[in-house]
Amino acid sequence: MDTNRRDALKLSATAALSGMIMTNALAATEGQPPIVVEPLTGKAGFRIANYLPKMGATSRLGLVTNDGLVIDIPAEAKRQKLQLSFDPTSMISLAGSGNKGLVELAALFKSRGSNLQNVNQTILLSPIPKPQANIYCVGWNYLDHFEEGLKHRADSAVKEYPKVPVFFSKGTQTMNGPFDNIPYDAGVSTMIDWEAELAVVIGKKGKNISEENAMDYVFGYSAYNDTTARDIQQKRHSGQWFKGKSIDGHGPMGPWVVTAGGVNLEDTRIICKVNGVEKQNASYKQMYFKIPTIISELSRGLTLLPGDIIATGTPSGVGAGRTPQEFMKPGDIMETNITGIGILRNRIG
Amino acid sequence: MDTNRRDALKLSATAALSGMIMTNALAATEGQPPIVVEPLTGKAGFRIANYLPKMGATSRLGLVTNDGLVIDIPAEAKRQKLQLSFDPTSMISLAGSGNKGLVELAALFKSRGSNLQNVNQTILLSPIPKPQANIYCVGWNYLDHFEEGLKHRADSAVKEYPKVPVFFSKGTQTMNGPFDNIPYDAGVSTMIDWEAELAVVIGKKGKNISEENAMDYVFGYSAYNDTTARDIQQKRHSGQWFKGKSIDGHGPMGPWVVTAGGVNLEDTRIICKVNGVEKQNASYKQMYFKIPTIISELSRGLTLLPGDIIATGTPSGVGAGRTPQEFMKPGDIMETNITGIGILRNRIG
Repeated sequence: MDTNRRDALKLSATAALSGMIMTNALAATEGQPPIVVEPLTGKAGFRIANYLPKMGATSRLGLVTNDGLVIDIPAEAKRQKLQLSFDPTSMISLAGSGNKGLVELAALFKSRGSNLQNVNQTILLSPIPKPQANIYCVGWNYLDHFEEGLKHRADSAVKEYPKVPVFFSKGTQTMNGPFDNIPYDAGVSTMIDWEAELAVVIGKKGKNISEENAMDYVFGYSAYNDTTARDIQQKRHSGQWFKGKSIDGHGPMGPWVVTAGGVNLEDTRIICKVNGVEKQNASYKQMYFKIPTIISELSRGLTLLPGDIIATGTPSGVGAGRTPQEFMKPGDIMETNITGIGILRNRIG
Repeated sequence: MDTNRRDALKLSATAALSGMIMTNALAATEGQPPIVVEPLTGKAGFRIANYLPKMGATSRLGLVTNDGLVIDIPAEAKRQKLQLSFDPTSMISLAGSGNKGLVELAALFKSRGSNLQNVNQTILLSPIPKPQANIYCVGWNYLDHFEEGLKHRADSAVKEYPKVPVFFSKGTQTMNGPFDNIPYDAGVSTMIDWEAELAVVIGKKGKNISEENAMDYVFGYSAYNDTTARDIQQKRHSGQWFKGKSIDGHGPMGPWVVTAGGVNLEDTRIICKVNGVEKQNASYKQMYFKIPTIISELSRGLTLLPGDIIATGTPSGVGAGRTPQEFMKPGDIMETNITGIGILRNRIG
C-alpha cells in the first residue's frame, strides 16, 4: 500500500497542475475499506470494469471475478490469441458489439490465466468516462420521492404524478469515477444533494422501441449518483433542471457495469449513505416507471445508441426533502450502493 | 446539375435502405434556390464549411469565399505543404486549435490555388455532425417570446422574467444538416414548431468564465433552428423541455461557421420563414441575456470545451405563440436566416 499511496500523492500533485482527473485517490491514499464485490443476482453475467492496472498506465476494460480478481481483457485476448470484435479500451465499443462481444468475454473468462491482479490494487475509472451524449435522466420516478419534494419545490405547479416519465439530461462533464472526489465550490452551490440511482447502459441502436422489446436494448447496469446542486436546479433557471444537474463531476458511476443477465432487477435495492448514515433505501419494485417503459418512452422519435446511459431516478430520502433540509459539505463521504452491482464511495470537495 | 440529381436520387435510395443521413438532397434534387453567400459583417473572418466535394466523398472542412468558391482545406494544405495543427476533417478539432489554426487558415486563404469548386456543387453538412455533448440551449431569451408563450404554456407558474438565462439541452441526435429534411412522424408529434437561433461555437476550454473574458471563448457563429415538438415539450414531461427538444433531426445547423471576427453581432438579425412567409425577425439587440452573460452563467461550475454548441434562444413569432397556433406539416419548407452568417433551408418530412 505504501507504493500505492506514494503514487497517488504524486498523481494528485500532477492532477492539480494539469487539470487531470484524479482517480481512486481516496481509496489509495487513505486506507478506505476495500472494494466490495457483491454476488451477482442474475443467472449469468459479467462485471466489466474500466481501470488502470497502476497509476500512469493506459486504461482498459477488465472482467472482475467473484473473488475480486481482474482479468485484463486486451492482455488476456492477446494471450489467448483471440481477435476481439470490439475496442478493449472502450465500454461504448463493447456495448455495441452485441452477442459477439459477450461470447468473446465468455471465452476470455473460461480460459483465463492464473496471474490475476486484485481489484483493490487497481485504479477503477468510470465505466464510460467520456459519454457520447449527455446522460439521460428520469425525474420523480419513485412516488415517495415525488411527494417529499412537493413542499420544497419552486416548480410547485406540478402537483399530479406524471403520466409518462419526466426526462432531463446531465451534461457530459458531470461524469466522475466510482471513488473520485466530487468538486465543491461554495461560489457555485452550497446545496449539494445525493441521489442514488440504478443506471442502464444501452447495448443496441434503436428508436420507437416497444415496451415488449425494450429489455433487448439493455447492455448492462451500473451504480450511479445523480448528484445535484439543488439551489441551482430549483431557483436559478425557471424550473429547468439541466444546469443544476450539470456541475462538473456531479455524477459518479461504477464501480463497473454488470451485463444484463447478471442482474435480477426484482432483487435490486438502491441505497445511499452519507458519512455512514443511511439516507435512501428502496427496492426496484418501488420504481414507478419500470425500465421497459423508460426505454420505450425515451426512444419515441429519439434514437438510442450503444453506450448511452440512462439514470432511472432516485427514491425518497434526498437531503432537500428532509426537515430541516440537509446538504453535503466538504469532507463528507457519499456512498451509493446498488445491490448486486456495486458500491461507489465519493468524498465531497 | 443532371449528374448531381442522379447521384442525389441514388444516395436517397441508399439512405432509405441503410438509415444513412441524406444530405443536401433538397437542394440537389429539386432545383432549389442557390446557396446564398451573404457578405460578412465583421472586420475579418472565415466561413468554414464541413462538406463533401461530391456524393460518396469523405467529408472535410473548406473555406467559403465571398464569391461562393470553396477552398478544400486538407487538399490546399497539402498543395502548400503546410502542416496543420488541427484535423482538417473536424470542426471540433479546428475550434480547439486556437490562434494557430486561424493563422493557418489565413495562409491557406491567401495563397489559395485557382481551381476552386462552386459551393453549389458541394454537399454541405452540419458543421458539427456529431456534437461531443448535447447542444446547450437558452430559453425565453427575447422578452416578446417569453410573453407570447404565457397564454399557451403548461408551465404557466413561471410568470416573471428569469433573472438568469434558462438553460436546457437538446440531444446529440437532433443535429441535422443545413439543407436536410426534418423527420416527421405523426405518431411522435403533430406540433412541430420553428425556432430560429444564433448558435455560438466555443473555441477554448473554460469554467467560471467572467463576462469580461467570455468573448475570448467564442470560436464562431452559425445559423441554427431549435426545432421543437411542442406537444411533447409542454405536456408530456411535467414541464421539463428536454424530450420535446430532442427528436431526431430536429436541430439543423450551418450552412457553415463564421469565425468570431467575421460577425458584428449588433448587425445580426434572426429570421425564420416558413413556405416563404416571414414568421420571426428580430435583432441581436433584442436578445435579453447577451452572449457574454450566457457564457458566464453557463460555465459556472461547468467546463465548456472547444466545439461545444450554445443555441442562444429564439425571438417571438413561433407557431405555438400564434392565435390560432400554427405547426409545420410534411412538405413545408423552413428557412432560418442569421444575417451575415447564412441561410438554412429544411423541408419537413
